[in-house]
Amino acid sequence: MNESLEHKRHTLAHLLAAAVLEKYPHAKLTLGPAIDNGFYYDIDFSGGEAPGDADLKDLQKSMKKLLNKWTEFSHEEVSATVARERFAGNQFKLELIAEIEAKGEPITLYSCGGFTDLCRGGHCEHPKDELDTDAFKLDKVAGAYWRGDEKNPMLTRIYGLAFETREELEAYEKQVEEAKARDHRKLGKELDLFTFSELVGPGLPLFTPNGTLMRDLIVEKIMKIQAKYGYVKVTIPHITKSDLYKTSGHWEKFKDELFHVKGQSDAEFVMKPMNCPHHTQIYDARPRSYKELPLRFAETTMVYRDEQAGELIGLGRVRSITQDDGHVFCTVDQIDQEVENIVNVIKQFYTSLGMFEEGKFWVSLSVSDPNEPEEYLGGREVWEKAESMLENVAQRLNLPYKRIEGEAAFYGPKLDFMFKDAIGRERQLATAQLDFNMPARFGLEYTDNEGKKQTPVMIHRAIAGSLERFMAIMIEHFAGNFPLWLSPTQLAVIPVADAHAPYATEMAEALREAGFRVNLDTSNDGMGKKIRNAKQMRLPYFIVIGDKEVESQTVTLESRDTATSELMNVDTLIAKLISEVNV
Amino acid sequence: MNESLEHKRHTLAHLLAAAVLEKYPHAKLTLGPAIDNGFYYDIDFSGGEAPGDADLKDLQKSMKKLLNKWTEFSHEEVSATVARERFAGNQFKLELIAEIEAKGEPITLYSCGGFTDLCRGGHCEHPKDELDTDAFKLDKVAGAYWRGDEKNPMLTRIYGLAFETREELEAYEKQVEEAKARDHRKLGKELDLFTFSELVGPGLPLFTPNGTLMRDLIVEKIMKIQAKYGYVKVTIPHITKSDLYKTSGHWEKFKDELFHVKGQSDAEFVMKPMNCPHHTQIYDARPRSYKELPLRFAETTMVYRDEQAGELIGLGRVRSITQDDGHVFCTVDQIDQEVENIVNVIKQFYTSLGMFEEGKFWVSLSVSDPNEPEEYLGGREVWEKAESMLENVAQRLNLPYKRIEGEAAFYGPKLDFMFKDAIGRERQLATAQLDFNMPARFGLEYTDNEGKKQTPVMIHRAIAGSLERFMAIMIEHFAGNFPLWLSPTQLAVIPVADAHAPYATEMAEALREAGFRVNLDTSNDGMGKKIRNAKQMRLPYFIVIGDKEVESQTVTLESRDTATSELMNVDTLIAKLISEVNV
Repeated sequence: MNESLEHKRHTLAHLLAAAVLEKYPHAKLTLGPAIDNGFYYDIDFSGGEAPGDADLKDLQKSMKKLLNKWTEFSHEEVSATVARERFAGNQFKLELIAEIEAKGEPITLYSCGGFTDLCRGGHCEHPKDELDTDAFKLDKVAGAYWRGDEKNPMLTRIYGLAFETREELEAYEKQVEEAKARDHRKLGKELDLFTFSELVGPGLPLFTPNGTLMRDLIVEKIMKIQAKYGYVKVTIPHITKSDLYKTSGHWEKFKDELFHVKGQSDAEFVMKPMNCPHHTQIYDARPRSYKELPLRFAETTMVYRDEQAGELIGLGRVRSITQDDGHVFCTVDQIDQEVENIVNVIKQFYTSLGMFEEGKFWVSLSVSDPNEPEEYLGGREVWEKAESMLENVAQRLNLPYKRIEGEAAFYGPKLDFMFKDAIGRERQLATAQLDFNMPARFGLEYTDNEGKKQTPVMIHRAIAGSLERFMAIMIEHFAGNFPLWLSPTQLAVIPVADAHAPYATEMAEALREAGFRVNLDTSNDGMGKKIRNAKQMRLPYFIVIGDKEVESQTVTLESRDTATSELMNVDTLIAKLISEVNV
Repeated sequence: MNESLEHKRHTLAHLLAAAVLEKYPHAKLTLGPAIDNGFYYDIDFSGGEAPGDADLKDLQKSMKKLLNKWTEFSHEEVSATVARERFAGNQFKLELIAEIEAKGEPITLYSCGGFTDLCRGGHCEHPKDELDTDAFKLDKVAGAYWRGDEKNPMLTRIYGLAFETREELEAYEKQVEEAKARDHRKLGKELDLFTFSELVGPGLPLFTPNGTLMRDLIVEKIMKIQAKYGYVKVTIPHITKSDLYKTSGHWEKFKDELFHVKGQSDAEFVMKPMNCPHHTQIYDARPRSYKELPLRFAETTMVYRDEQAGELIGLGRVRSITQDDGHVFCTVDQIDQEVENIVNVIKQFYTSLGMFEEGKFWVSLSVSDPNEPEEYLGGREVWEKAESMLENVAQRLNLPYKRIEGEAAFYGPKLDFMFKDAIGRERQLATAQLDFNMPARFGLEYTDNEGKKQTPVMIHRAIAGSLERFMAIMIEHFAGNFPLWLSPTQLAVIPVADAHAPYATEMAEALREAGFRVNLDTSNDGMGKKIRNAKQMRLPYFIVIGDKEVESQTVTLESRDTATSELMNVDTLIAKLISEVNV
């Protein structure tokens, strides 16, 4: 968010606090920052009545009224003693004052329209002139622990939405509304794709037959595309001795996010949170020659990360994460071609989803932050070389890229592909990452054409990324209306009456023979119900078989997306479907 | 082993002890039992010289000489005091005496040929007449802790082989020799199928591209066979809250073999050692109607068991175990047909390996031990019903079965398929298991055709069992010479000289197009080397392309198994290979 918008949002948090104090004089203010879609303020109402969602309208009115007097912000620096007097009785502000004092930082009070708050600054200078009263809205009330720690008192958090203009606010509200209708948790249940069990635990999805089929379709599509670039599958276990990550450098970085595994022995095992270190061990299983390079290992496998229970959202964030992972081991000379191949795989895959189109994606050239070298493994010259290699490929392939500092992985720079979904939300999906560090840490080698030992380079790559997150994004992007190739069931064949069942069965068999996933609906339900069922399950097509079709040996194809119906013979139908699947 | 053979082996342990004491008077005897292929005796030589492998010949000679005087065994019961006097100075025997005394059991001494040992009995009555001196052989010397506990002193274990006849001993030794040549750890390395890493840890294999391909071929074969019986894939995570196993009943049974998982929160997670409880949660994701049954869930997934480090052997016993698991949820009336379907899948799969042939396998009808009801979940009448249902299927399908008491799973009776490998070793592989207990424990339900709630039955089934163990067995059974469908690479195409490369490439492409896995060897190696490479990698076929083949537009097919060569055109070749793959 730009600075001006951030200042507006922060100003509105102050304005909210002022309105609250007017109506709830017992309220104790704590902290009120700007956030991505507006602002909030955490307030302690334990001394009396607390507002609920129903009270927000009134509070909003008060804010608008108060705003008339908010002509200009002023501030003063005060001593800790003065600040303590000013906020006597508010243990939260007193805690903040003590912290600022301990750090030796200045203590500042900001005032506007007669309301003063302990604050670091960052407001509109003239709120009355700068704020559009139609561009903000109080949103909802929630509970929040003081400083997010459940051992602390529970406060009341009041959320507000705020944008530059009324139009932007309305657009945002519309997006939220649309997102709700597309929510993958809701659609996932309707389309019978996945489930959660209280006995198994949060963040650990179980995939039904439909959901597993969708996973397999994604993985097979990617594997088929990348097979022609020489990718081969490998298989690793889900645990390892911690020694593996002590060698790779992940231990120091990610120790706290790991699930630790304990058997009867004293050995220190962990669940793998990534696959690259395991894959180095397959490379290292025997001596390698330059003739074997590039070696391209691919594996779709679950990794485990100890995400906070409160942050788990359906498939969007889980603890068992299926990665469509891949690692290329190659020489420095081969990097350019290998990255190009990966970009080609990404291009072909996302084209099949209609997402690799101008304006619908961009590429983040995620490079290191030169001011924080301690965040990265390896020397500067290696990083600069790797970063310029990636930038060269991005330029040569005409990728719409931006250089973003500080977004690199700790082992190397990346190309991160950012796609816009159907309702405009940006999602990071595919990635290609250079790594000049890990091979050396594991002592990987190959013999070059002069018989000398050399260290290979590693390229990490993912096409869909996490399959769970990818599925969540696809469900919401398509609102369940998946492209033909990705639909668990592709067609329903619906006989009008029992007499049409034999021909319907024949059609279903012909379609299955041609490789399509068909639901032949010979249940006792009426036509209308059968068609509603097919539509509710978002089947791309259904074909109705009645007298006309039997007589003319044709089928009537009805499309989910175009709402048209077309009479054709089964060969034409199959040819049409095959060409649609092979996008 | 039958009782007579066990007595002979135990008698030989005594005879060995007598021979040892003659030559090593400082030796302290401890325990000497009969084992599967003979006997051993654990002896403490810490008071002086200890024998090595080189001394076994002499000891064996002494045994044969002593045997002449071993005409008849006698025994006496003695008091603990007398026994202590007799074994004064031997702390091991004194410990055993104290234990027998504490249990209030009789203390017996067995004597023969002037040698006496503390013993429970179980010998030949007349060793000289009963033992064949050519049917036993001292085998090797190893270290062993007193009572298997590494905190105890290290003893010397002398192993002997012993059988009824010389022929049986020789046959056994030949089998051991053959097994060594087929050892899957050795062949797995040669054929580049899997590897282990010290950083990852013991019992956690990493599968190379070749090994992963073999795994996939096995899984695809099974999935293809069972798809026509309505099996569909599901996907579950590898961890769960312990609550799942507390509900299933596994917690009490298997708590100690589980890997426990700990994140930052207090939640008690474990790695799954089996998949059935997770699969019940997919069944339970929504209300089920009788119209949906049978539901047949299949999943190839890794389970984790904390096997002792000392018991891990290559792929034969691992900690990350890939199961080709499946669970059928059905009504009682459907059991019969579902078990028959499973047997059909097993039959078709093992036929493709040439193993489902008369005399090469038998079926264990593994039922409960009625004397130990506490070992099993659920009441007797349920067990009896389940056991008789399985027996009925086995009879109806003419399976060569034997009823084995005490071999049931704790939740139900099983059909376990036992196959003989190429060198006569028996291996338990496929299984079908009835379960009337778990569905009730999880409260699973379906609505029957009268609208009433009913509890479904579960059938657990595995076709290959553990993929790791299955691969180990297949590698050793075929000595690496896999059937065509299971070979990671199926053919090498070898041009005699550069001039033949274009036609060779054309042939390779035609074969790949037809779905075969081909290695086109255009390296700079000579013909002889190329053929040796193809043979060393156990490729089922290779085709050589020279002048004759280019001129006549044919190929010369050379077979690994028949050592014949045959001239044919490429269409004939492809037709021949397709028919061989579709066994």
